[in-house]
Amino acid sequence: MSDALVLHEDPRSGNCYKIRLTAALLGRSLALKQYDIMAGETGTPKFLAAVNANGRIPVLQIGDRFLPESNAACWYLAEGTRLVPGDRFARADMLRWMFFEQYSHEPNIATLRFWLRFIGEANLSDHQRAQIMPKRIAGCEALRVMDEHLAACDWFVGEAASLADIALYAYTHRAEEGGFGLGEYPAIAMWLGRVQDLPGFVTMD
Amino acid sequence: MSDALVLHEDPRSGNCYKIRLTAALLGRSLALKQYDIMAGETGTPKFLAAVNANGRIPVLQIGDRFLPESNAACWYLAEGTRLVPGDRFARADMLRWMFFEQYSHEPNIATLRFWLRFIGEANLSDHQRAQIMPKRIAGCEALRVMDEHLAACDWFVGEAASLADIALYAYTHRAEEGGFGLGEYPAIAMWLGRVQDLPGFVTMD
Repeated sequence: MSDALVLHEDPRSGNCYKIRLTAALLGRSLALKQYDIMAGETGTPKFLAAVNANGRIPVLQIGDRFLPESNAACWYLAEGTRLVPGDRFARADMLRWMFFEQYSHEPNIATLRFWLRFIGEANLSDHQRAQIMPKRIAGCEALRVMDEHLAACDWFVGEAASLADIALYAYTHRAEEGGFGLGEYPAIAMWLGRVQDLPGFVTMD
Repeated sequence: MSDALVLHEDPRSGNCYKIRLTAALLGRSLALKQYDIMAGETGTPKFLAAVNANGRIPVLQIGDRFLPESNAACWYLAEGTRLVPGDRFARADMLRWMFFEQYSHEPNIATLRFWLRFIGEANLSDHQRAQIMPKRIAGCEALRVMDEHLAACDWFVGEAASLADIALYAYTHRAEEGGFGLGEYPAIAMWLGRVQDLPGFVTMD
């Protein structure tokens, strides 16, 4: 009971979905506590004091402990399972793609999806509007790096799906909602199908 | 010999320093291969083909394998040592701070340092100049989260230094070069001193 899992999440967030997908592939159940980030529900004094001082979701609650950062939560759930490679270099290489996801992919592809699909281009600030083109270019560059890698390999690391695939799947499969056409990235399209065929796979919605 | 370590780096980069500091604290030696990022030396066809298709440093070379992403390289070096906690939750919590560093800290604090100290404000594009204030605000927010945490704890995770401290030390101790005054963050100032007192500590230069 003390290690009961509760995911503090917004169901529209790909970062939250990563954790639900990891749990589903591993057959673990998660209780869900949902927040509306558009309504500021993760910025309340109560949330900041009790869940995450950074005001962000997802946060994985394990008993009375709180673990922010989507990829750290996936790691907590999956360590010691088939979703984390047993080889030392492969394990570090998996983390490499997970850091790539948070640095080079999510700030471009997830942010444009959030701005264009949820906020709406007409409601963006001038500052946000000026960032659309740089984020478009950087997001395409991240997709190019992924596509090049996947042209030679079925999975990001080794011969099987790992957390690297889960982390990168979350926002890549919704990239078109941010205006990124996936037609130019044929190896990515094939890989999305392989992820969807994994036993236990669940969709985002 | 096949696992000889070579760090592909620019000595001005805090991301590269993290790996040198990790190796020093563990008593591991690294060969260094230096590049000038300002001169485009990490964007050559040879670098992109042989070292990192993403055009970034650091890359840790282990024999004939290449591992990009600073925090993944630190993990590779430190797994199984005192710099990675033995407890499952603590290990995930360490990764939580390392993802926080790459998402909420580095893109603000390291980027402003790079722009203001190395490129020079007069040479920035209009687009970059428009990002100074949002990055200033987000960087201060990251420092606030760190300071609040360190007001109650000597280290980011548990009772000893871990990779979380190394990852966050690298750009925090040079934050003033990006125009961030550390005087408002007394707990951070004390923690910087604790890191500098670690046996085997090396400076950035």
